[in-house]
Amino acid sequence: MPEKIKQYVDANRDIFLEQLKELLRFPSVSSLSEHKRDLVNCAEWLKTQFEKAGLEHCRVHPTGGHPAVYGDYLHADNAPTVLIYGHYDVQPVDPLDLWDNPPFEPIVRGQHIYARGSADDKGQFFAHVKAVEAGLKTKGSLPVNVKFIIEGEEEIGSVNLETFLKNNKELLKADMVVISDTPMFGYDLPSICYGLRGLTYMEITIEGPKKDLHSGSFGGAVANPIEVLTKIIAKLKDDDNRITIPGFYDKVLDLTDIEKENLKSLPFDEKAYLKDIGSEALVGEKGYSVLERIWTRPTLDLNGIYGGFTGEGAKTVIPAWAKCKVSMRLVPNQNSAEIGALFEKYVKSICPPTVRCKVVKHHGGNPFLVPIESEKVQATARALKRGFGAEPVFSREGGSIPIVATLKEVLDLEVILMSLGLPDENTHSPNEKFYLPNFYRGIISSAYLQEELVI
Amino acid sequence: MPEKIKQYVDANRDIFLEQLKELLRFPSVSSLSEHKRDLVNCAEWLKTQFEKAGLEHCRVHPTGGHPAVYGDYLHADNAPTVLIYGHYDVQPVDPLDLWDNPPFEPIVRGQHIYARGSADDKGQFFAHVKAVEAGLKTKGSLPVNVKFIIEGEEEIGSVNLETFLKNNKELLKADMVVISDTPMFGYDLPSICYGLRGLTYMEITIEGPKKDLHSGSFGGAVANPIEVLTKIIAKLKDDDNRITIPGFYDKVLDLTDIEKENLKSLPFDEKAYLKDIGSEALVGEKGYSVLERIWTRPTLDLNGIYGGFTGEGAKTVIPAWAKCKVSMRLVPNQNSAEIGALFEKYVKSICPPTVRCKVVKHHGGNPFLVPIESEKVQATARALKRGFGAEPVFSREGGSIPIVATLKEVLDLEVILMSLGLPDENTHSPNEKFYLPNFYRGIISSAYLQEELVI
Repeated sequence: MPEKIKQYVDANRDIFLEQLKELLRFPSVSSLSEHKRDLVNCAEWLKTQFEKAGLEHCRVHPTGGHPAVYGDYLHADNAPTVLIYGHYDVQPVDPLDLWDNPPFEPIVRGQHIYARGSADDKGQFFAHVKAVEAGLKTKGSLPVNVKFIIEGEEEIGSVNLETFLKNNKELLKADMVVISDTPMFGYDLPSICYGLRGLTYMEITIEGPKKDLHSGSFGGAVANPIEVLTKIIAKLKDDDNRITIPGFYDKVLDLTDIEKENLKSLPFDEKAYLKDIGSEALVGEKGYSVLERIWTRPTLDLNGIYGGFTGEGAKTVIPAWAKCKVSMRLVPNQNSAEIGALFEKYVKSICPPTVRCKVVKHHGGNPFLVPIESEKVQATARALKRGFGAEPVFSREGGSIPIVATLKEVLDLEVILMSLGLPDENTHSPNEKFYLPNFYRGIISSAYLQEELVI
Repeated sequence: MPEKIKQYVDANRDIFLEQLKELLRFPSVSSLSEHKRDLVNCAEWLKTQFEKAGLEHCRVHPTGGHPAVYGDYLHADNAPTVLIYGHYDVQPVDPLDLWDNPPFEPIVRGQHIYARGSADDKGQFFAHVKAVEAGLKTKGSLPVNVKFIIEGEEEIGSVNLETFLKNNKELLKADMVVISDTPMFGYDLPSICYGLRGLTYMEITIEGPKKDLHSGSFGGAVANPIEVLTKIIAKLKDDDNRITIPGFYDKVLDLTDIEKENLKSLPFDEKAYLKDIGSEALVGEKGYSVLERIWTRPTLDLNGIYGGFTGEGAKTVIPAWAKCKVSMRLVPNQNSAEIGALFEKYVKSICPPTVRCKVVKHHGGNPFLVPIESEKVQATARALKRGFGAEPVFSREGGSIPIVATLKEVLDLEVILMSLGLPDENTHSPNEKFYLPNFYRGIISSAYLQEELVI
């Protein structure tokens, strides 16, 4: 059967590519209201594609915002059900003048297809649709049950997804979720992303004088909010770049031996990484490698600071206030709300009584981790190995993907992040592209995954 | 003779007030090009006033910008020559809606006249013009020679004054300069401001990654410019609020016993001062009173800070750079250029090699001090005592008045700051006002000063 699927994919390469191009031509920018109709059109087109692939119960589901598209195959009795999540909405295209080609006129150059949304996420989720089609067209049935939910609001924070999931628990009932919306570790390194960091985003405001003061008349006599704020920030980490908030590390899970082994085995080029960043040096928490620091250790980052005179030149003012934005990346088993409370308590405890201190939490999310040893992870690894002809690696991401936590928490399912993108595909930037070999290997790997899950 | 002058001033109160109103009606806002013609008109009007007062060689002198008005009386053979400096230009009026009356339609309410420029500086310098008139009209001569130079660019940094002074050294040759452009210490407390702080204004830029980075993907692995900057700032003062820059205090002149005595004698109300500021507490260098801190001690103030995301809400970015503006108020005998160099050297020495650090000097000026014991200061004190009927106090200012240093340095003259304003007159703010009793007392005090200088 797998050979049949390979043959089918090979025979239909051009047709699949044309279909992907059709999908990429919809300017489905979810953040811009002028594209509202384009999103609906894209969803309708997808529904038709689902039907052509052989899925049933295909429907464009209204939500509070842009619609979500559903379709399923439910004829594998006593077999598990896989829920495949993706999103058909895309990022805005500006700055448009930095694109070499119009972002919604997909073009193939070399091995890549260039268009907004090609990697994030149209190309990636569409591979799974084609895998279902390949299975059904070649053997008339699938080894597992499959449900698709492709939403239209991922790039605007999936604002209506949680409500939709809660209202459709029965419809979306499954045994696991598969998402292809992450980059592989590198070219020809099929990857499963098994962990994401969580987030707690805070804002500190230090208030001093009731209005800006002349620094000549008042300089030296009042607490300067910028000075107080900088002294607070300077106390948030010690000289080893360890975060000093009491209790911050209490719930941090140690890496397993398997994870440590895996991290060491990854071909990570520090020099290239540093060059790409353009900094003078890589620095971070003492005693950890770069990959450990960005994937597996919690961090505290200053995201913004402002207060007083920020224009060109000089103004001799003692500001009435100063603010900063601080976010913390969390790892299992830290809890976003708990860390926010610890942060607030500590900041207030080190703030002198000469000023007023306000601490606000903006948003956050809990970290995500699925054990490498999990059966479903291992099934995905086997499928990728067969599909890509290479040993897959287990990666983590330093960032957060809020929908992963949402899907996991609302549906209470294990989520597998089967990466089909690449790190250099310019997602969210001009000249977004998708590596076409990964499209075809992704189709085949997805079909193999159906098999591996029932072995 | 003084009685004659008093009588003359009394007899002409209404006429002087009407003339002051005429002067205040010119919207001589030097920073706005649409008022260029108003400044010229104001200068021409002043020239006519000079002539009517009995001054000679009256002329509107062109400069690279707005003109300066000159006039003199040079018939006091073997007597000293007093150069009186003032400025006829004014600050902008915005926000206009906060004014109770149109800013260029002067109105008397109670003892104050309300208009832009009434205290800063039209009302103050005009008192000296009327003193010359009173002297010449009542006795036909003055005991000293007098020269007036009233410029039109003080509120935009006296950009052309230094060149004008250098090009007209002979014309402006004198034995001392008198300026009335400062506030008295309080109502009915005639004041001589005998010291001003200097300034060194610096900007630090910390550069890290070549562009803003995603804090999820990179958080924990690179030096964050905001974090580095805040750690540098936190090291600029110790826990006693002493500035830690090596050599910073080396040239600071100790207060004389006379100054200490004088400072203690001043009726300074810390509670009212704190309430006016609206801060939680007064803080500053350990071991010094508030007046010492703001007048006689050098300080370091954070004037502005910015970097990363500064909008509403949250953005998870590690910024490419962060900047801050830092100014230092200097006291005799600190030197602005030297302090700038010490600052730069220290900041660079404590900046880690993980980032790039740039330090720029914006501008600065040296501190000013004239000894209380100086003959000319004492002559001014006697004149004020007679004019106001109260013992004068010796005050200093925490701020800088760059023209004072310019006049002192280019013309090499002792400068006397004979305050006729008050601290609550809203200079640079809406509803600027001038206390009319100080206008009339100022005229008489100025006439007495002519006398006291030749006793």
